Amino acid sequence: MKVAVVMGSDSDFPVIKKCLEVLKSFGVAYEARVISAHRTPQIAGDFATHAEENGIGVIIGAAGKAAHLAGVLAAYTTLPVIGLPIKSSTMDGLDSLLSMVQMPKGVPVATVAIDGAENAALLAVQILALSDKGLRDKLKQYKKDMASETEKKDSVINGEAKKI
Amino acid sequence: MKVAVVMGSDSDFPVIKKCLEVLKSFGVAYEARVISAHRTPQIAGDFATHAEENGIGVIIGAAGKAAHLAGVLAAYTTLPVIGLPIKSSTMDGLDSLLSMVQMPKGVPVATVAIDGAENAALLAVQILALSDKGLRDKLKQYKKDMASETEKKDSVINGEAKKI
Amino acid sequence: MKVAVVMGSDSDFPVIKKCLEVLKSFGVAYEARVISAHRTPQIAGDFATHAEENGIGVIIGAAGKAAHLAGVLAAYTTLPVIGLPIKSSTMDGLDSLLSMVQMPKGVPVATVAIDGAENAALLAVQILALSDKGLRDKLKQYKKDMASETEKKDSVINGEAKKI
Amino acid sequence: MKVAVVMGSDSDFPVIKKCLEVLKSFGVAYEARVISAHRTPQIAGDFATHAEENGIGVIIGAAGKAAHLAGVLAAYTTLPVIGLPIKSSTMDGLDSLLSMVQMPKGVPVATVAIDGAENAALLAVQILALSDKGLRDKLKQYKKDMASETEKKDSVINGEAKKI
Amino acid sequence: MKVAVVMGSDSDFPVIKKCLEVLKSFGVAYEARVISAHRTPQIAGDFATHAEENGIGVIIGAAGKAAHLAGVLAAYTTLPVIGLPIKSSTMDGLDSLLSMVQMPKGVPVATVAIDGAENAALLAVQILALSDKGLRDKLKQYKKDMASETEKKDSVINGEAKKI
Amino acid sequence: MKVAVVMGSDSDFPVIKKCLEVLKSFGVAYEARVISAHRTPQIAGDFATHAEENGIGVIIGAAGKAAHLAGVLAAYTTLPVIGLPIKSSTMDGLDSLLSMVQMPKGVPVATVAIDGAENAALLAVQILALSDKGLRDKLKQYKKDMASETEKKDSVINGEAKKI
Amino acid sequence: MKVAVVMGSDSDFPVIKKCLEVLKSFGVAYEARVISAHRTPQIAGDFATHAEENGIGVIIGAAGKAAHLAGVLAAYTTLPVIGLPIKSSTMDGLDSLLSMVQMPKGVPVATVAIDGAENAALLAVQILALSDKGLRDKLKQYKKDMASETEKKDSVINGEAKKI
Amino acid sequence: MKVAVVMGSDSDFPVIKKCLEVLKSFGVAYEARVISAHRTPQIAGDFATHAEENGIGVIIGAAGKAAHLAGVLAAYTTLPVIGLPIKSSTMDGLDSLLSMVQMPKGVPVATVAIDGAENAALLAVQILALSDKGLRDKLKQYKKDMASETEKKDSVINGEAKKI
Repeated sequence: MKVAVVMGSDSDFPVIKKCLEVLKSFGVAYEARVISAHRTPQIAGDFATHAEENGIGVIIGAAGKAAHLAGVLAAYTTLPVIGLPIKSSTMDGLDSLLSMVQMPKGVPVATVAIDGAENAALLAVQILALSDKGLRDKLKQYKKDMASETEKKDSVINGEAKKI
Repeated sequence: MKVAVVMGSDSDFPVIKKCLEVLKSFGVAYEARVISAHRTPQIAGDFATHAEENGIGVIIGAAGKAAHLAGVLAAYTTLPVIGLPIKSSTMDGLDSLLSMVQMPKGVPVATVAIDGAENAALLAVQILALSDKGLRDKLKQYKKDMASETEKKDSVINGEAKKI
Repeated sequence: MKVAVVMGSDSDFPVIKKCLEVLKSFGVAYEARVISAHRTPQIAGDFATHAEENGIGVIIGAAGKAAHLAGVLAAYTTLPVIGLPIKSSTMDGLDSLLSMVQMPKGVPVATVAIDGAENAALLAVQILALSDKGLRDKLKQYKKDMASETEKKDSVINGEAKKI
Repeated sequence: MKVAVVMGSDSDFPVIKKCLEVLKSFGVAYEARVISAHRTPQIAGDFATHAEENGIGVIIGAAGKAAHLAGVLAAYTTLPVIGLPIKSSTMDGLDSLLSMVQMPKGVPVATVAIDGAENAALLAVQILALSDKGLRDKLKQYKKDMASETEKKDSVINGEAKKI
Repeated sequence: MKVAVVMGSDSDFPVIKKCLEVLKSFGVAYEARVISAHRTPQIAGDFATHAEENGIGVIIGAAGKAAHLAGVLAAYTTLPVIGLPIKSSTMDGLDSLLSMVQMPKGVPVATVAIDGAENAALLAVQILALSDKGLRDKLKQYKKDMASETEKKDSVINGEAKKI
Repeated sequence: MKVAVVMGSDSDFPVIKKCLEVLKSFGVAYEARVISAHRTPQIAGDFATHAEENGIGVIIGAAGKAAHLAGVLAAYTTLPVIGLPIKSSTMDGLDSLLSMVQMPKGVPVATVAIDGAENAALLAVQILALSDKGLRDKLKQYKKDMASETEKKDSVINGEAKKI
Repeated sequence: MKVAVVMGSDSDFPVIKKCLEVLKSFGVAYEARVISAHRTPQIAGDFATHAEENGIGVIIGAAGKAAHLAGVLAAYTTLPVIGLPIKSSTMDGLDSLLSMVQMPKGVPVATVAIDGAENAALLAVQILALSDKGLRDKLKQYKKDMASETEKKDSVINGEAKKI
Repeated sequence: MKVAVVMGSDSDFPVIKKCLEVLKSFGVAYEARVISAHRTPQIAGDFATHAEENGIGVIIGAAGKAAHLAGVLAAYTTLPVIGLPIKSSTMDGLDSLLSMVQMPKGVPVATVAIDGAENAALLAVQILALSDKGLRDKLKQYKKDMASETEKKDSVINGEAKKI
C-alpha cells in the first residue's frame, strides 16, 4: 500500500519534502500531489474516491489557512486521512490547525503538529506497519536510533555545560 | 433569484431560523437545506454546481467546528457564498470563524459574525438589491426603522438613568 | 457599477494594490480612496451616504488594528460592504479580523481573510456578476484557469517528488 | 462638566448601571444615552461633535462585539473618551476589547477591563478631579474606604482559615 | 487486534463511553483503562511497552488540561496512538489540544477534535480496517448510513423552513 | 516555616480553601490573608518585606484578572512565591495566567494551573520538604496513595467498560 | 501639570520616545523615568504616592510581559494612570495588554493600543486639556492637520490607483 | 544540593545557557542534561526517580511545543520541578506554556515565563536558599544590585528624555 501525500498548494512543497524523505527512508511507496479542495474540488473528490482501489493505504493532506483539504478528502474515503496543518503568513498556523482538527462527528482527520511533516510521515508508517512486520522492525530501529542520538547530545551538552 | 441557506447539521436550525425570518420579511425567496461537506460531499458539490441554473443568486453556508461547508460550496460555483460560523460546544466559535474566513486566494467566502444569522440574511438581501430597486427601498426602510428603534431605546434608557 | 476600494491608511496600499489588479483584470471599474473612520470620519460618512448615487455597487473597506472602517461605511449605506482585515505590527491580524467580522445585528460586513486582497476583489466581482452575464463568464473562465494552473503544478510536483 | 455614558445597545444597561451608580456616588453629573455607531451613526457623530459645547467633559463609550462606538465618538471630539468593552455571547469579550483598545495613531480610546463598568466611572472621576479639589478628596476617601474594606475582609478570612 | 482506550482520569468516562460504543458497534475488541501519565507513570510506560505483544493494534489516549497521556504512551510504543483532547473547566480545551497535537519530531500523536470521542474510535477502526476487509465494508456502510441520515434531515428541515 | 496564602479578594476563598486543606493535611502551618496589590498595596509591600522574619518560608499569591499580586509580593522578598491564577468572569483565566507567569527577568513567580489550588499547596510542601525529612516522607506516601487511587479507578472503569 | 512617563525597562525607550515627542510638540511638560514594579517597587510606590504633590497630573506607565507597572502606580495615587502595553519577544503583546487592561474594580488603568506610544501621549494631553483652553485648541488643530494629511494621501493614492 | 537542568532538545541550549550562568553566579552546583520525555522516556523516568538520592534538590525542565518534559519528571519525583516553556517556531510559546502550567491535581510544575531561563534559575536558588543562609544573602544582594542597576538606567533615561 502506498501513502498519498496531497498538498493544497505547491508553495507547501519545502515543508512536504521532509515528509516524503521520511517515507522514502522507510522504503514506503508514496506519491505526491497538488490538489486543492477549493481550486480543483472535483479532482480532490475523484482522488479520494478512488484512492483505495489505486493502492493507497493512507492519505496525508497538507494545507494552510482555512485548511479544508484533509477533511474534504476524508469525506470521500474510509481510508485513514492524516492532516498536516501548514503555517501561513498570518495566525501562526492556528487557523490551519483548527480547520483540520475540529472535524465533526463521523469524519475524523488524524491531525499532527503545525508544520510537523516528519510526524505525518511517521504516523503513516505506524499505520501501515500494523500489517507489515518489516516496517514494524524499522520503526523500532528508528526509535532506538532516535534515543541513541538524544543520548549522544546529552553527553555533549552535559560536557559543554560544565565549561560555563 | 433565490437565496439558498445551507446548514451543515440540523442542530444549527434554531440559529438558521432567524436568518430565514429576515429573508422572508424582505420577501426574498429562499430554500433551506441540510447538506454536509463531510457527510454528503457529492450532494454539496452537485448543489453548488447547479445552484446558478436552479435560480439561486446567493448561497449562505452555515456550519460549526471545522466549518468547511461554505468553502466547499464556493469551490463549485462562482455565485457569492456567505459564510455563517456557528458556535459549537468548544472554542467559542473561533474554530468555525477561522475555518470560514481564512479562505485561500481565488475562492472567497463572505464571512459574517459568529452566530450572526440575521446579518447573513441582510448581506444576501443587500447583494440581491443591487439589481432590484424594490429590495433596495426595503433595505433603506429597514435602516430607518432600526434607527428609530434605537432612538426610542435611547429615550427610555436616558430616562431610566435619571432615576438612579 | 463601480467598486470603491477604501483603505484606512496609505500604508495599506501595497496589499490593496493586489485587490485593484484583480478588479482591473476583470474589467471592473474601481476607485481607490484613503479615508479613515477615525481621522476623516465625516468624509467616511459622506462617502458611504452618497456611494450609491455615485455609481458605486460594492464597497471594499480595508483596515488594520481596531479596524472600524468597513463597519462605519456600512452604517451609512445599504450597499454590500466587504471587509478586508489588514495585518498590522501586533496581534497578527486577529484584532483587525474581529473588529470587522463581529458586527452587530443589522449592519453586516462581508469579511474575507486577513490580507486577502485578491479575494475581496473576487467577492466584489461575484456580487456584480449577478446582474452582468459578461462578468459571470469571466468568473467561470477564471475558475477554470485557476484549476488548470493547479493541475500544472500538480504535474510538476508529482514529478519532483519522484526524484527524492 | 458632565460625564456622558453612551452605550451601543440597551441590552448593555445592566452593566452600565453600575457605572452610573459610581458617578452618582461621587456627585458627578452624568447623562446616559443609547447611540449606536452602526444603527444611528449620524447621531453618534453629532453627539460627539457637540459634546464639549454641551458641557460634557468625559465620554464613556460602552459596546460589545465589533465595538466601534468609543472609537467613532473619539473621531469627532478631542475630549477624552473611555472605552468599556462589553462581553457578548461569543469570544468572551476579546472581540470587544481588541476593537476598542487597538485604536490607530492619532485617536486614542482609554480602555478599561471587559465589563469593568465601575472602573470606567472611576477613571472619568479621576480625570475630572484634576481640576476639582472636592472630587480629588472624595477619590482619596474612596481609596481609603476600599483599603479598610479589604482589611476587614482580611480579618474575616484570616479567622475562617484557622477553622479549617 | 484490540483497541486500547486509555483515559487520564475516570472523570473523562462519560465522554469516553461514546468512543467505546462506536468501537463496539463495529465489532472491534477494546479495553478501557484509567492510567495517568502523572499519577501512575510506570503503569503508563509498562502498558505502552507491552501493548503490541498484548494484542493491541491502536491506542487511544484521552486526557485534559496539560494532556501528556497520549504523548507519553507514544514514547513507549511504535503503535499508532490517537490523541483525544478533553475539554476541562478552563481554557475551553485549547490547553488539551495543544498539549496533544504539538508533538515534537519523531513521536506523532494522531489528534482528533476536542471531545471528539466518536471520531477517535472511527479513526482507530479506519486504521484496523486497512488489513480487515470486513471492517472496511462496515466503514463504507457507516458512511452510507451517515449520508442517508443527513439526507433525511435535509428533507425535514427543507419542509420546516417552508412553514416560516 | 509557615506557608502564607495571600488572596487578592475574599471572593477567591472557595478556591483557596482547597489549598489550605492540602497544607493542613500535610501538617504544614499556614496563614491565610486577603491583601490586594491594588487596594492595599502598602500592606502587600510590608507583608512581603517582613515575611521571612515572620517565619514564612513560601508565599502563595492567588488572584484573578490583571493578577499582579504574586508579582508584587515577589518584588519585596527573596522567598519563593507561588502564583495561583484564578479564573474570573471573562477570558477564562488566560488574563490571570499571563499576568502571573510572564514575569520579567529577575523576579520569578512559580505559576501553577488556573484554579490549581491543590497544586499550589503541594508545590509549597515540596519546597519545604527539601529541608524536612518528615514532609518528604509524607509526599512520597501522598504519591503512592494517589497512584493506588488511580489504580482502583482503573479497575472500576475497566469493568464498567466491559458492560457496554 | 506635568505628565510623568514611567517605563519598566530602558529597553522600552525607543517606543517611549515617540510618546515624549508628542508631549513636547504640544508643549506639555513631562519627565521620563525608568521605574520597575518588580525591581524597584519602593521607588514605584513612592513615586506614585508623591506624584500629585510633585506637580504631576497624569502618569503614563509603559511595560511589557506581565506588565504590572501601570496597575502598581495606580494603586498608590488617585491621578489618572494611562497604561501603554509594550510588545515583547513572545505573545505579541497580548500578555502586556491583558496584564494592564484587566484591572480589578476600584483601580482603573486607561489602556491604549499595544506599542501605541503616541496615543498614550495624546490621551494625556486630552485629559490635561479639560482645564487648559490652549491645549484644547492645539488638539483641535492637531485633529484638523491629521485630517488634512489623510486627505492629501487620499489624493495621492487615488491617482496612483488609476495608473494600475 | 544540586540543581538539575534538563532540556528536551539540544537546540534549546542557547536559552538554557543563561539559566546555567545564573546558577553559576550564585555558586549553586548544577548539571545539565538533554533528556526527552518522548525520545528517551526511560531515561527521563530513571533520572527523576533517582534525582533525590543523587543529590539533586530542584529540577528545571525546559521544553517547547507539546512540552511534557517537566510534567513527566514531576511524575517520578517529589522534588520541586520548575517548568521553563521554550518558544518554538509556531504558536509563540503558548503551546509550551499551556502544556507545562496546566498540570492536573497532584503533580505541580512551577512554571516561569516563556524563555524565562534566568528566572527558572533564580526560582531554584530561592528554593535552595530556604535552608542555606549564604544563598539567601546572595539573593538579597542580587535584589539590591538589580535595583541599583535600574536606578542607574533611570538617571540615564531621565537625562536623555530631556534632550528630546
